[in-house]
Amino acid sequence: MSNATAMLQTYPGTMNLDKDLLAKAIDEALTCFQTCAACADACLSEEMVAELGKCIRTDLDCADLCATTVRVLSRHTGYDANITRGQLQACVAACKACGDECEQHAGMHEHCKICAQACRACEQACNALLASIS
Amino acid sequence: MSNATAMLQTYPGTMNLDKDLLAKAIDEALTCFQTCAACADACLSEEMVAELGKCIRTDLDCADLCATTVRVLSRHTGYDANITRGQLQACVAACKACGDECEQHAGMHEHCKICAQACRACEQACNALLASIS
Amino acid sequence: MSNATAMLQTYPGTMNLDKDLLAKAIDEALTCFQTCAACADACLSEEMVAELGKCIRTDLDCADLCATTVRVLSRHTGYDANITRGQLQACVAACKACGDECEQHAGMHEHCKICAQACRACEQACNALLASIS
Amino acid sequence: MSNATAMLQTYPGTMNLDKDLLAKAIDEALTCFQTCAACADACLSEEMVAELGKCIRTDLDCADLCATTVRVLSRHTGYDANITRGQLQACVAACKACGDECEQHAGMHEHCKICAQACRACEQACNALLASIS
Repeated sequence: MSNATAMLQTYPGTMNLDKDLLAKAIDEALTCFQTCAACADACLSEEMVAELGKCIRTDLDCADLCATTVRVLSRHTGYDANITRGQLQACVAACKACGDECEQHAGMHEHCKICAQACRACEQACNALLASIS
Repeated sequence: MSNATAMLQTYPGTMNLDKDLLAKAIDEALTCFQTCAACADACLSEEMVAELGKCIRTDLDCADLCATTVRVLSRHTGYDANITRGQLQACVAACKACGDECEQHAGMHEHCKICAQACRACEQACNALLASIS
Repeated sequence: MSNATAMLQTYPGTMNLDKDLLAKAIDEALTCFQTCAACADACLSEEMVAELGKCIRTDLDCADLCATTVRVLSRHTGYDANITRGQLQACVAACKACGDECEQHAGMHEHCKICAQACRACEQACNALLASIS
Repeated sequence: MSNATAMLQTYPGTMNLDKDLLAKAIDEALTCFQTCAACADACLSEEMVAELGKCIRTDLDCADLCATTVRVLSRHTGYDANITRGQLQACVAACKACGDECEQHAGMHEHCKICAQACRACEQACNALLASIS
């Protein structure tokens, strides 16, 4: 059981979203945040860095979006569906863009392969949570 | 001239968005980020903190969203309209929610009054930039 | 194997720090970041929130410091020992303060108990990495 | 008057640090956060990007450290001198490293020149605040 799951079980108020979907989205966003930050830096040390500008930039955006997703989804007090929905939609867009970009270099760079997988997993988890928001 | 404006003028590549709209959105998001972080803390020290849970939470969300908006809008390399649009829409939703919430306490708490104004200004600047994205 | 470990193995440049100590510190900081963010929100929904101001504030600081530790430790390009050392020392101070604070409410609030443990684990992992920096 | 100054004046509790020094440090860290984020991206679009790896990395670290400094200094509730001191020392180290690095390219890249100035200003403001902490 991840800490995210454990923390969801100890929240003293009422929660508006499904705990399993929330925990999955938090865990995937947490992993994707770190993986994208590391992938941006790995790309920066590749010899072909001049061709990786878009990949680095998309990694940085995705890392930032995922970190904010972790923060927003870890809060349940004073829930506002519009904020959660907007954040999830933005995160899905970033994960889609970064996953697509990294996938193009997955054959050459193992870090991009791992990063693309993390982006796909986060995109799916955010989409699943999004689908549950009325 | 803010540093955001100066930095936009020194960017060596081509830029996909209007520099004036970008500079305005970056500056307002920067101010809103700090103001919301400060408002959350000020609310936490109010005697009536038990009634300010939603305000604190919305402040924290809005601060996080605005900080990420600053980061995304400060990048122009490998521009992806979907990420920028998603981030701006999410930021507008957070600024709207936080502005509405803080406005309710604007008469009692000067920090909420200042924060509501910062949220409105950021919301408008992000909407103006959004409208320019084809 | 965590993604942090996998990403360390794919970094194309030379690395200045021990990979096992790095991976441990990144993983613990990642967990502590999310746990502290969740604990701040859980405290905000406790009936005795008026007495939890210091705990919420320390949680927020610790979450922010840990998120930055994840970012800094995920980069190896252009390593600067002074930045890494400074960030780790600051993170240790925040984890110590937050662990001490949450421990005081560990008997009453399960979220504070889990959070205190995450802070201790992160503090130890950062100290172990710090000790390895010459 | 910046919003940071205005918000300091509306804080309902007692404040442990000098308001002028605090406001200056918050404002400079806010500017440095955005400037470093923009400089990293500008470097990424330079033709000589392969030689700017260390500059980009130091920019990214400094942006992250400055953003966290803004957050920590914007909180006054439950003040803990150890956290504030640790964060300021880490921020000073990052600003020093980034200012030194950007200064080396200041003659070639206007964005590095502006960034070096922002780093020096933030370093000084953080040092001035640090000196006031007993």
